[in-house]
Amino acid sequence: MASSEDKTRLYELVLDNGWAASPYVWRIRYALAHKGVPCEPVPLGFTEIATAFGGRFKTVPVIEHGDTMLAESWDIAEYLDRAFPGRPALFSGPAEHALVRLTDTWYFATILRKMFAMYVLDVHDAARPEDRAYFRRSRQELMKGATLEEFTANRASRLPALRDAMMPLRTHLSRFPYLGGSAPNFADYIALSGFLWVASVSTLPLLAHDDALRPWLERGFDLYGGLGRDPRVKTLFE
Amino acid sequence: MASSEDKTRLYELVLDNGWAASPYVWRIRYALAHKGVPCEPVPLGFTEIATAFGGRFKTVPVIEHGDTMLAESWDIAEYLDRAFPGRPALFSGPAEHALVRLTDTWYFATILRKMFAMYVLDVHDAARPEDRAYFRRSRQELMKGATLEEFTANRASRLPALRDAMMPLRTHLSRFPYLGGSAPNFADYIALSGFLWVASVSTLPLLAHDDALRPWLERGFDLYGGLGRDPRVKTLFE
Repeated sequence: MASSEDKTRLYELVLDNGWAASPYVWRIRYALAHKGVPCEPVPLGFTEIATAFGGRFKTVPVIEHGDTMLAESWDIAEYLDRAFPGRPALFSGPAEHALVRLTDTWYFATILRKMFAMYVLDVHDAARPEDRAYFRRSRQELMKGATLEEFTANRASRLPALRDAMMPLRTHLSRFPYLGGSAPNFADYIALSGFLWVASVSTLPLLAHDDALRPWLERGFDLYGGLGRDPRVKTLFE
Repeated sequence: MASSEDKTRLYELVLDNGWAASPYVWRIRYALAHKGVPCEPVPLGFTEIATAFGGRFKTVPVIEHGDTMLAESWDIAEYLDRAFPGRPALFSGPAEHALVRLTDTWYFATILRKMFAMYVLDVHDAARPEDRAYFRRSRQELMKGATLEEFTANRASRLPALRDAMMPLRTHLSRFPYLGGSAPNFADYIALSGFLWVASVSTLPLLAHDDALRPWLERGFDLYGGLGRDPRVKTLFE
């Protein structure tokens, strides 16, 4: 295993404006900040990812740490706790690890997947011009032939259901400042990263201006010196 | 605070057949078994709960431990870890505690609430005869005037959506033997208790016979010497 002294690089997905835009990259950015591990970002466009790793990895985030290279956000998060044992842990133990994973599974099925469907055309439009044709083709294959425009045409009508699906987060955050309790944990980073990804590309405000999630989102984007703050980030609120 | 040597009683809700039937009581039964705290059950019918505690508590579970009496399953679970520090902990720390609570919130909103709507008439029919009129009146008030029969008339048509809502549990349990990871934790007890409550009254099988949840349910009902096993428990499977 690489030493905790070795340099760390994070291969990221970038938009045309240079801002990182992948909910899976963002959760690793937060994880690295949580652990206080300095990291050099390596920006890649959609079309560069397929060839950047000689076919070894097809998605980002990819982390490079000494002579170790690793993809998949969960594998990376688990690796970080092993490789940097002297730094603050992402997972206090196996039960927290399992329950964050369950939270990720709920969040993906009930929220993130709906976000993808709602903002996929915005991602296309925010991508680097040379990445757009590839992005369109690969995503339209997933959508069984519908164009991105057809797929998102009635998206505003789907907003109420998406906002409703967030009710358990609101209930929880009426009791705790973070999903992880009194301090943020990887569950927060996962959920915040979904919202931050939407905010990177959004042309349709996701939330009402007084949404009860707002204080948590503001706190979360402020974490680690304002990790989620940038003039390129659009508002999530009406 | 009462001493860990003091006797513990659990006030429960019983059906006509004497079997306990409340998902909130069951999670505390599991919690007590997890901690290895012996406990004397005190069965109460729906109509007895209102008067049993001189108005102090209106719901069960209620736990009596020495001179301490406490209602609300979350307050009880947290109390058990404080009152029996030498026994296996329900929560390894604040992050596990917060994430189990989040899991409970998701589970209630997306699964347990739908179970209530589907099996409320079965609960009525399984209640002690002297409790049925009260149960009907109080539940129909919650349902804004619909009768229990009207409310459940088309329940079979709602099964597919309820089964779909369980997908995140199935995904998680394809990776881990329990929601809590390699060992069951309070998240398992919460979720198992919902299914066990359905199984206590069900006249409509909740799950397909080959549902991927089945191995976890079987394991969960077998825990602690077969805590969820009894001839009065009906099958959950088609």
